Amino acid sequence: MVTVADATKIVLATAGRLSSITVPLQQALGSILAEDLCASDPLPPYPASIKDGYAVVAADGEGEYPVVAEARAGDDAAALHLQPGTVAYITTGGPVPKGADAVVQVENTEVVGNDDGLKRIRILKAAKEGQDIRPVGFDIAQGTTVLKAGERVGAAEIGLLASIGVVYVKVFRRPKVAIASTGDELVDPVEGSVLGRGQIRDSNRAMLLAAAAQQQCEVVDLGITRDVEADVAQMLDAALASHADILITSGGVSMGDKDFVKPLLEQRGRVYFGKVLMKPGKPLTFATLEARVRGSIDTRQMLVFGLPGNPVSSAVTFNLVAVPAIRQLAGWPNPNLRRVQARILQPLRLDPERPEYHRATVWWAVNDGSGNPGFVAESTGHQISSRLLSMRSANALLEFPQRTGTLPSGTMLPALLISDLTGMPFDDMPISSHES
Amino acid sequence: MVTVADATKIVLATAGRLSSITVPLQQALGSILAEDLCASDPLPPYPASIKDGYAVVAADGEGEYPVVAEARAGDDAAALHLQPGTVAYITTGGPVPKGADAVVQVENTEVVGNDDGLKRIRILKAAKEGQDIRPVGFDIAQGTTVLKAGERVGAAEIGLLASIGVVYVKVFRRPKVAIASTGDELVDPVEGSVLGRGQIRDSNRAMLLAAAAQQQCEVVDLGITRDVEADVAQMLDAALASHADILITSGGVSMGDKDFVKPLLEQRGRVYFGKVLMKPGKPLTFATLEARVRGSIDTRQMLVFGLPGNPVSSAVTFNLVAVPAIRQLAGWPNPNLRRVQARILQPLRLDPERPEYHRATVWWAVNDGSGNPGFVAESTGHQISSRLLSMRSANALLEFPQRTGTLPSGTMLPALLISDLTGMPFDDMPISSHES
Ligand SMILES: [Mg+2]
Ligand SMILES: [Mg+2]
Repeated sequence: MVTVADATKIVLATAGRLSSITVPLQQALGSILAEDLCASDPLPPYPASIKDGYAVVAADGEGEYPVVAEARAGDDAAALHLQPGTVAYITTGGPVPKGADAVVQVENTEVVGNDDGLKRIRILKAAKEGQDIRPVGFDIAQGTTVLKAGERVGAAEIGLLASIGVVYVKVFRRPKVAIASTGDELVDPVEGSVLGRGQIRDSNRAMLLAAAAQQQCEVVDLGITRDVEADVAQMLDAALASHADILITSGGVSMGDKDFVKPLLEQRGRVYFGKVLMKPGKPLTFATLEARVRGSIDTRQMLVFGLPGNPVSSAVTFNLVAVPAIRQLAGWPNPNLRRVQARILQPLRLDPERPEYHRATVWWAVNDGSGNPGFVAESTGHQISSRLLSMRSANALLEFPQRTGTLPSGTMLPALLISDLTGMPFDDMPISSHES
Repeated sequence: MVTVADATKIVLATAGRLSSITVPLQQALGSILAEDLCASDPLPPYPASIKDGYAVVAADGEGEYPVVAEARAGDDAAALHLQPGTVAYITTGGPVPKGADAVVQVENTEVVGNDDGLKRIRILKAAKEGQDIRPVGFDIAQGTTVLKAGERVGAAEIGLLASIGVVYVKVFRRPKVAIASTGDELVDPVEGSVLGRGQIRDSNRAMLLAAAAQQQCEVVDLGITRDVEADVAQMLDAALASHADILITSGGVSMGDKDFVKPLLEQRGRVYFGKVLMKPGKPLTFATLEARVRGSIDTRQMLVFGLPGNPVSSAVTFNLVAVPAIRQLAGWPNPNLRRVQARILQPLRLDPERPEYHRATVWWAVNDGSGNPGFVAESTGHQISSRLLSMRSANALLEFPQRTGTLPSGTMLPALLISDLTGMPFDDMPISSHES
């Protein structure tokens, strides 16, 4: 049995990086850049005013001046050369005319006359040379590497790329993930349906399709496969035919005599591991299958994660092992889950046989119980692997050491983040109310 | 000038919650539930085996037994009533036959004969009554409220809903957001283009379209509007005609004589505030416009955020004030940004005139400099509001108090989370290398 750390290493050593593709800028959101991007022109491209006010010759100082022109944002003002003793109206972002060397904001001026169409103003506070002007290239010098290969594209990065005129951008392709459930007991959820004896609804596929979509994968729904060897073989073929980069199955990897997923993967591909020292998720299987690329002598490799059928085992192994693989394929320089430390709000029992990944909701507390700010973690309750309610609201997996005993409330534990913390609970309940 | 806290309160008091809609389960991902959801049947719906092994009568104890049947997952085994002195093969999740009261896992048995098609096994370790059986309703009792109105739907929640047979679910509608840039200086980014004098590329619209999409909004791109009163009026009409719940403009809210956004909002709707005590983002304007609903006497309210034109001001005000509004419309019970505490890795200068929202990258350090684990924050560099590079990789806004002086390195500050931490930097560099 491999450890989770070794399992993850094996998976990441096997998963490459997908090829890069060029996409329209907006479609790059969330992707990893496959190229450095440089500014081909400076920003601002002209000396630009920081304020609404008047472009002046700083040496002129306080006093009354005629407003001889308007240098507005978008107006080229190219013809203007400001003479000492005159000023030009200017708006934020507007080009500072030649001859001017400072801007006086409108709040430091007053209009003293507007006769015969010639406005005159008084400067109440003399400007220093360069005041409220952004020189050419102040925000981005020409040639600056604005973003580097390996960076993730967020909204700000899209804005940055637009500002340097990037319309198409080269990013790593995001994986296509095919998802299949296996099991004779499974039926598709149907509104208002009554289950036959021995039947349960397939929840793993709905969950994994959503989880893969959250990881920004393109998903392929391969439906439910019966516990029949030929059907399982056909499902593997369908996954290859869909050109999926990853196949994720659930079920069929245990000790049952109709658990055909693992034997078929052994027969048709390479199985790297078929059991992991973890709770839940022990039967987790990882393999690769090769497909001949149509009309080519090349082969293409599909990663296969055979997740256990229990819903919680599926969810935990997906997050622990498949998510880093998805990220690596998508070009993340460091695809591992991020870890924080959190103090548990109730005593929690350890497992002597396997390291446990205990589902929990973490949030930030101004006082984590130690007098200092920090993360606190509340267990999601009974952790049996069939009880998907233990994944409800879970945003972290607490890493329990493998040993006997109970961790007292207040113990600090490593917690792997499996969900966005921008929606974590607020620390608005007294800590005692969380204790059980 | 209102404070940011007051501005947010005003916005949240004005923004309602959108109506609820019923969507197919997968489309609910990321939405807030508008109804409680209860299990109409128990899970498991039958006593189910936790292991691959043999269903037995516990009182029989160790010894040799004939395998009289197979109770597999998905097999109804309804006809079977297990007699003492016999066992039935059973797989994980399979229905425990009547008469049986325990399961012995396959590891605790051995096959001792398989004559005439009748398999015999030896039980090596006697079972206790109830062992390795999940009783009916053990994971979800019939009638349990599985999820409550106000909860956010993640992948696990989708799995849970599938498990209780939910195919369509009632969630709060997510806002439709129209986005417009204003300014005579703006041109659309075009591949390989050279800017004319006085021109800059419109980066705000690309950034805000991406930022709104990240908040799971439907977006409407209203393009660039010139600094012409009639054009701005027409843009407001276009936003209303698009049935947007929110209009986000950038630019046109400063002191310039062609800044028409604020005056037009005052003329045609209600402006709640037009200046906020913050850096960057002071000219942030919030208003509502009413539209007569076609063929009805009802009016519909559109929220309008007039963001400042500087890219960083746009980004910061979007996150600070528009994001909570988007969340509230989408049904979040607590739409405010989440706050953590982080220690700064370099000395940072305060602003005596306005509370500053300093862009930073935060990550988790096992030693935050105090000897304890915690968040550390690195400034994204020069914070002038035109420099969008200060938003690059920013995942938090440090809340600076409004006062003179410099905060020493190591100071702990509140940090508002503006981006997912599941991709935050790893703490793999020595802290000293971050210091400047
Ligand atoms: Mg099965
Ligand atoms: Mg403007």
